[in-house]
Amino acid sequence: MQRHFDQDLANLKDRLLAMASHAENAVDKAIGALNERDDARARQVIELDSTLDQSEIELDEMCINLLALKAPIASDLRLITMAMRITQNLERVGDEATKIAKRALDLNREEPLKPLVDLPRMASLATGMLRASLDAFVRGDTALARASILRDAEVDALNKQLHRELVSYMVEDPKTITRCLNLMVISKSLERIADHATNISEEIIYLYEGREVRHLPKTQDSLGAIPAPKSNS
Amino acid sequence: MQRHFDQDLANLKDRLLAMASHAENAVDKAIGALNERDDARARQVIELDSTLDQSEIELDEMCINLLALKAPIASDLRLITMAMRITQNLERVGDEATKIAKRALDLNREEPLKPLVDLPRMASLATGMLRASLDAFVRGDTALARASILRDAEVDALNKQLHRELVSYMVEDPKTITRCLNLMVISKSLERIADHATNISEEIIYLYEGREVRHLPKTQDSLGAIPAPKSNS
Repeated sequence: MQRHFDQDLANLKDRLLAMASHAENAVDKAIGALNERDDARARQVIELDSTLDQSEIELDEMCINLLALKAPIASDLRLITMAMRITQNLERVGDEATKIAKRALDLNREEPLKPLVDLPRMASLATGMLRASLDAFVRGDTALARASILRDAEVDALNKQLHRELVSYMVEDPKTITRCLNLMVISKSLERIADHATNISEEIIYLYEGREVRHLPKTQDSLGAIPAPKSNS
Repeated sequence: MQRHFDQDLANLKDRLLAMASHAENAVDKAIGALNERDDARARQVIELDSTLDQSEIELDEMCINLLALKAPIASDLRLITMAMRITQNLERVGDEATKIAKRALDLNREEPLKPLVDLPRMASLATGMLRASLDAFVRGDTALARASILRDAEVDALNKQLHRELVSYMVEDPKTITRCLNLMVISKSLERIADHATNISEEIIYLYEGREVRHLPKTQDSLGAIPAPKSNS
């Protein structure tokens, strides 16, 4: 019975990882569609969002069944309730990717406003945080989760900086307003994707250490000491 | 044992209702702070957000304990996992209220841009949806949950209309850009609060009818027939 249950949990983790990689892929594609002015790729992102919606529903069902049939306790129970939150966060990452793709379609119809260097940088930070949070989950590595949370400040700072820059474009030339607003929405979406990664990492720290770090400032002090890295020997 | 458990579930519902009324109150206050240019009220909203954060943590703990100690099955199990989602949505409503309050502080330092008639209207729609979704939860009334979901389109439409209006202000007079951006953020926050209410209502339909309506278009057709209202006799 326990062995069977361990297999169920391993399946659950695999499905979560597949969903996460799908979500990450959607973000990459959406930013690619913007960067390379590729409408076909943007439309792909929009069409594939239903796959993530479906994964959320199926994974929820899987979790509820595990809770109902196995009545797990302690850490297994926390793992399953946490899995339900992770799927919710991943589904929302997919929603943000769709939002980016739609704005990319709008932007691709107009003259480019400026080199988009900040947005691909933010995207790669945000998807990196997402990947790290899922790796942390699978390996039970809370140091990795903490490191991911600390990078959130960088994404926030890039978003603020880009926002200020876009406001000055708008003031100087009102013809750029619509494009600037679209770019602001994309920047905000990327910032939100980093927030979802942060949510996941916070849950992981709680799962493995029982330490509640939600709603604390995202500094090393309030997150607590980072445990020493695991030795490879 | 079952009687004790029923008491636990009743407590859980009471705590959820208290948290919901707190969240609704925060939104009302934030919009009041904007409408009446009342900085003190805005600061109150920002300070009180930690109460909602704390409620989320405590209610989660309560749910996990119920799952661990009582190993509930079927509808009780769904009710508890749903309660965990409701708290998450309510905590985010609190975050949006805080965002509105912060923007109100910015806006209160400048000349008013225009009568704010649309924003109070959106706020009252969104908090009405939130209240309806929680009433639907407590009474097991899925007709009420459906009616609440259908009002989401109205909030979306108001948000779009206000957005367009604000863009034309910005184009006509770049001096209004910062104020317009702040008003756009507030409008978007209200739209998001309506989305959280919709999430809750969707969970309720699933809980009581086993019907999955997440990710479907928000029309009467796709939500399925509204059950006949309960007779009062």
